[in-house]
Amino acid sequence: MKIVIVGGDGFCGWPTSLHLSNLGHDVIIVDNFSRRKIDEELNVQSLTPICKLNIRINTWFEITGKSIRYVEMDVSKNYQELLNLLEEEKPDSIVHFGEQRAAPYSMKSSATKNYTVSNNICGTHNILNAIVDSQLDIHFIHLGTMGVYGYGHEEPIPIPEGYLDVKIDTLDGREIADTIVYPPNPGSIYHMTKTMDAQMFQYYAKNDKIRITDLHQGIVWGTQTELSSLDERLINRFDYDGDYGTVLNRFLMQAVVGYPLTVHGTGGQTRAFIHISDTCKCIEQALMHSPVSGDRPMILNQMAETQTLSDLAILIQSLTNCEISYLPNPRSEAERNDLNVRNDLLRSFGWEPTLIKDSLLKEITDITQRYCERADHSKIPCVSYWTRSNKIADVSHQIKSSEVAEPIS
Amino acid sequence: MKIVIVGGDGFCGWPTSLHLSNLGHDVIIVDNFSRRKIDEELNVQSLTPICKLNIRINTWFEITGKSIRYVEMDVSKNYQELLNLLEEEKPDSIVHFGEQRAAPYSMKSSATKNYTVSNNICGTHNILNAIVDSQLDIHFIHLGTMGVYGYGHEEPIPIPEGYLDVKIDTLDGREIADTIVYPPNPGSIYHMTKTMDAQMFQYYAKNDKIRITDLHQGIVWGTQTELSSLDERLINRFDYDGDYGTVLNRFLMQAVVGYPLTVHGTGGQTRAFIHISDTCKCIEQALMHSPVSGDRPMILNQMAETQTLSDLAILIQSLTNCEISYLPNPRSEAERNDLNVRNDLLRSFGWEPTLIKDSLLKEITDITQRYCERADHSKIPCVSYWTRSNKIADVSHQIKSSEVAEPIS
Repeated sequence: MKIVIVGGDGFCGWPTSLHLSNLGHDVIIVDNFSRRKIDEELNVQSLTPICKLNIRINTWFEITGKSIRYVEMDVSKNYQELLNLLEEEKPDSIVHFGEQRAAPYSMKSSATKNYTVSNNICGTHNILNAIVDSQLDIHFIHLGTMGVYGYGHEEPIPIPEGYLDVKIDTLDGREIADTIVYPPNPGSIYHMTKTMDAQMFQYYAKNDKIRITDLHQGIVWGTQTELSSLDERLINRFDYDGDYGTVLNRFLMQAVVGYPLTVHGTGGQTRAFIHISDTCKCIEQALMHSPVSGDRPMILNQMAETQTLSDLAILIQSLTNCEISYLPNPRSEAERNDLNVRNDLLRSFGWEPTLIKDSLLKEITDITQRYCERADHSKIPCVSYWTRSNKIADVSHQIKSSEVAEPIS
Repeated sequence: MKIVIVGGDGFCGWPTSLHLSNLGHDVIIVDNFSRRKIDEELNVQSLTPICKLNIRINTWFEITGKSIRYVEMDVSKNYQELLNLLEEEKPDSIVHFGEQRAAPYSMKSSATKNYTVSNNICGTHNILNAIVDSQLDIHFIHLGTMGVYGYGHEEPIPIPEGYLDVKIDTLDGREIADTIVYPPNPGSIYHMTKTMDAQMFQYYAKNDKIRITDLHQGIVWGTQTELSSLDERLINRFDYDGDYGTVLNRFLMQAVVGYPLTVHGTGGQTRAFIHISDTCKCIEQALMHSPVSGDRPMILNQMAETQTLSDLAILIQSLTNCEISYLPNPRSEAERNDLNVRNDLLRSFGWEPTLIKDSLLKEITDITQRYCERADHSKIPCVSYWTRSNKIADVSHQIKSSEVAEPIS
């Protein structure tokens, strides 16, 4: 297959590009290097020493003899260039990792809110529009997030694979059975854009019969895959800063540098997790199991397991003897929640997930301990305001620094 | 009240500006004149001879002594300018008409699709973001469309005021009652953007406690209000072209110039209608009945009556002796549908709608007959492709010109 990978230089995109290239697919990376530019803007860098994309690609060729091509392009701004690429290359699939993916960054300022909306919505729409425009039957695979479901239900509802069976009260004594898209409940501007993406997918699948797979991914942890470990020049990025670091990776980093693990609230919040190597394998499964044209979008819950934040903290404490610090929670979210996620369809494709308990120690020794001297400790806290009331409180100097939001996804 | 009216130079915005100014409010119009620029792009013009905004405003002052101010600004592109305006003027409310509002135009080309998405989503998001940023308690009123509900249900479900009571099957034998946003079913890129707006409203009401009213408006018909009729220099626009003309106004135009009324399909499609003067009155009601901060957005169905397209055509035939031409329907929509729209809440505010049967003849004599010599008959058909399969068929020269989409909303 010929596969365009938008955002193929990023945290999920790079190992997925290697994985698909290794399987023999013709991979074309499209990236505008925005993630590297945001590192500069935030004055942070990956804990791991990541190479430039051309070095990564040359190394991959050197080791395996396999070619990955790349095009520098901002798909949110260069529609015609994107269309030309599709018309020239005629890819079978597009895997889209090209959205701004950090909830805390999306809440950092009015500028990052606007950027997240315009980049994510216009970028994703441009791709869908260009697929229609090109008249090619391209399978579109989008990396979404479990976070669109929200975690706020008082009574636990099992989270289905995107669609929910309901009965509608018709107000005249009848009830009608219907299947709806699971009602979204986004907790940040970033998550909000993913729920808006979902509307576009429903529309384009219905109106233009585009084959679309939306992967609602859990929180990714880990750094390396078997392939990115082949040579240090292939190493994947590891973000530990308050904006882009995901919760488990940040916990590992905090443990290694002697910073108490910061758990907000009771730690009873349950979240879904997946290892980066499983991201790659799930994308492979999605590519092989396209929905039929004319179907509704296929929605898969791309996660391996659920864990509470406090259980994770305690697990890491047992491995590293770190301290745990319980702080007030500035997000308006349930103190504790269950999370019963269905992913029967994805599991039926035959994929064996990597579990946290089996691989966490390797992550600590191979990555956080090995590269910890590269860490800038001042970048560990997060300084995004989550709500208007928090911001107003802070302007009045009535808020403690610990009450700003901690990224958990 | 001080009220910013975004898009206050447009078809709904201008008469609403007059209406609110006449009630004694301090009205500031923000407009980028995009609607007038699209007229140039499409090489069409309003059937009625509309004056430039400064002439309109000067005339209004001359007649009434009331001032309307205006600022030329593209809210989708100039965030800082918008924020400065809010911080300087501290408006009580913002009424937002500044979205690209024609479904056929949104389907005209890949460029108009992208424009509709970026203009509508980024514009609306900029306003919401700026309200939070300004720390002002501004009531945000947005003009939406009944079209977000879709018309596709096999079994008629009464359309509630935005929210639907459902029972969720928990897959373990239990049922949970919940209230959800009515599942949207947009039929065009334009309608899709309105469903995405709705996601932003849910988020900003929940996260930042913004007071938001979303008006799901029916198809507007008519041209003039009492106030815009005071002087010909205040006249409102009348669009009859295939892109911006709404179905009833286009029927009236076709009848007057001797073009058979083009009904696509059986004409059994039922739609909701509202007269332009009632748009103004409903905005007034929305301003006076803000939701409480922290509530979910208030959603009102801003419509006066429902009619089938064939009944409308027959009514106009009885008044004008015109012909009716039934053509194949290129939209993928139900041949006929019922539309049971609830608007108890809006009606409870005390508003008496203008009905088609009582006012249609006046519209014909005052507008379409009076100005019909200004019409360019070649602009009456619509040439937007509605779906990918239509476009591909046309490229293969297998489609009849009548099979392109007719705008009905």
